[in-house]
Amino acid sequence: MQQDLDQFSVTEAVLEQMSKTPDARLKQIMESLVKHAHAFARDVDLKPEEWLAGIAFLTEVGKTCTPSRQETILLSDTLGFSALVNILAANRQQAKSTDPSLLGPFYRAAAPLKQLGETIATKIDAPEIQFYGQVVDADGKGVPHAEITVWQTDAHGYYDMQIHGEDEMDHRAKFITDENGRYHFRSVRPLGYYIPMDGPVGRMINAQLRHGCRPAHTHFLIGAEGYEELVTSLYFGYDQYIGTDTVFGVSKSLIIMPEMDANAPIPGMEAVRYDFTIAPARAGGSGRVGADPSQLVKA
Amino acid sequence: MQQDLDQFSVTEAVLEQMSKTPDARLKQIMESLVKHAHAFARDVDLKPEEWLAGIAFLTEVGKTCTPSRQETILLSDTLGFSALVNILAANRQQAKSTDPSLLGPFYRAAAPLKQLGETIATKIDAPEIQFYGQVVDADGKGVPHAEITVWQTDAHGYYDMQIHGEDEMDHRAKFITDENGRYHFRSVRPLGYYIPMDGPVGRMINAQLRHGCRPAHTHFLIGAEGYEELVTSLYFGYDQYIGTDTVFGVSKSLIIMPEMDANAPIPGMEAVRYDFTIAPARAGGSGRVGADPSQLVKA
Repeated sequence: MQQDLDQFSVTEAVLEQMSKTPDARLKQIMESLVKHAHAFARDVDLKPEEWLAGIAFLTEVGKTCTPSRQETILLSDTLGFSALVNILAANRQQAKSTDPSLLGPFYRAAAPLKQLGETIATKIDAPEIQFYGQVVDADGKGVPHAEITVWQTDAHGYYDMQIHGEDEMDHRAKFITDENGRYHFRSVRPLGYYIPMDGPVGRMINAQLRHGCRPAHTHFLIGAEGYEELVTSLYFGYDQYIGTDTVFGVSKSLIIMPEMDANAPIPGMEAVRYDFTIAPARAGGSGRVGADPSQLVKA
Repeated sequence: MQQDLDQFSVTEAVLEQMSKTPDARLKQIMESLVKHAHAFARDVDLKPEEWLAGIAFLTEVGKTCTPSRQETILLSDTLGFSALVNILAANRQQAKSTDPSLLGPFYRAAAPLKQLGETIATKIDAPEIQFYGQVVDADGKGVPHAEITVWQTDAHGYYDMQIHGEDEMDHRAKFITDENGRYHFRSVRPLGYYIPMDGPVGRMINAQLRHGCRPAHTHFLIGAEGYEELVTSLYFGYDQYIGTDTVFGVSKSLIIMPEMDANAPIPGMEAVRYDFTIAPARAGGSGRVGADPSQLVKA
């Protein structure tokens, strides 16, 4: 017979029911989740009407997701949870590598392949800048034929899918590094932007009097045979929100500043030089982290 | 300038961004939530692909909700979180009262009002049982004109909305206690049932090798002017799952057994006698806990 449960023994009862979980890692994760979730409720002495508000909020977060909007990731991002997962992943890497940053909800696996030196913009309506550098291993040796996926806002602060929906790609591309691991492409200065503020996460941000802005940045996902996938971003140092990113994605090492550079491939065009260091793949490594958020929603 | 964040300082950075939240209770809840969520990720060293699986799971939970199905509540229930919230609410009550149990996803505020002695079934296709007793205050004094909302499965184990959708109500009703707080109505033996197993929560239950069953029960929501609302259920002691309810709702004090009873209003019909004790309302009390789950989903 089930004993009467109090606020501590109910936690034990849940762990007992989950104790036969055959997948050891799932068991470990769910046990920790239950312990922390219950400790949270006890700590704040959560009231039924507050619980119900939380249920309604989480339900709305899921309902708000579409193939072009991932509100659940946005919630994770604005609670610093995504940044923490990135930090933990970086800590597990023994080899030196570039600091990671958030994947965010705007990555698309099917970005068009372009030639080195091409622009990621389909129409050039703002002053161009260029990115160049090298993808190197922990010893500084160039990684040939690495795949670099790049995506950012246009010069007005919008991702393609915020303007065109799913149908049209812009300001995103894939490049393959040359024999020496070098890359080079053209773009425009991205703009910082508000996260989507018209959903439940936006209401949370407003209720916390947060500005809800991300500083301007360009996303990079870099992969090569035999290496861990690197998900990162470069942040434009002149942005007013560089120190208060609402999703906690900025590291000092990722802050750049476009400037005239005599060594850049195209003379007379502002340039960002950045070398990315990627770590060798480990046995049972972290797997593909660049899963396409649009694939998470079937509805 | 933002400092580079490590797995501990990222938590501080989130708390700092939330520190201006004007609503003190929201601030307290969100601070605790962030601390526990981050501690969970650190404890299990959560990997990016596991995080992504969690994002996909939570998104699907929200997407699965409809006006007649509340998967987010089901998740909370199966993690013992709803039971814990109920226990915390009961602990805050100073006056003696009947143990609470889960509201569950099948409550409807608009249940039809019936006269004492009527049946809650629209069609009688199984042996009838009767419920009777008294709603009393902490001193054992009857509470006149208390409103009792009752709902349960039919004799085949289904709630009305699982068969008829939103359009038709069955096996649910409201009754008003008499001058002495007494109530009496007819019903059938409800059946235990599987929680909905065809969604993400069902997959979790299967992955944990849990049976996913609730023992047979009849829900009660009892309210009266000047009293705290009581949400509880009576559980049928003969059910094989009485000791392992998959949503942790059973208390010993709520276990009943229908039997022949010479004192029951209708002779020759199995009866359940149960007296409910309700607590006086407190200033700034818990509010209405019986919010209609169907109202949580606008989509």
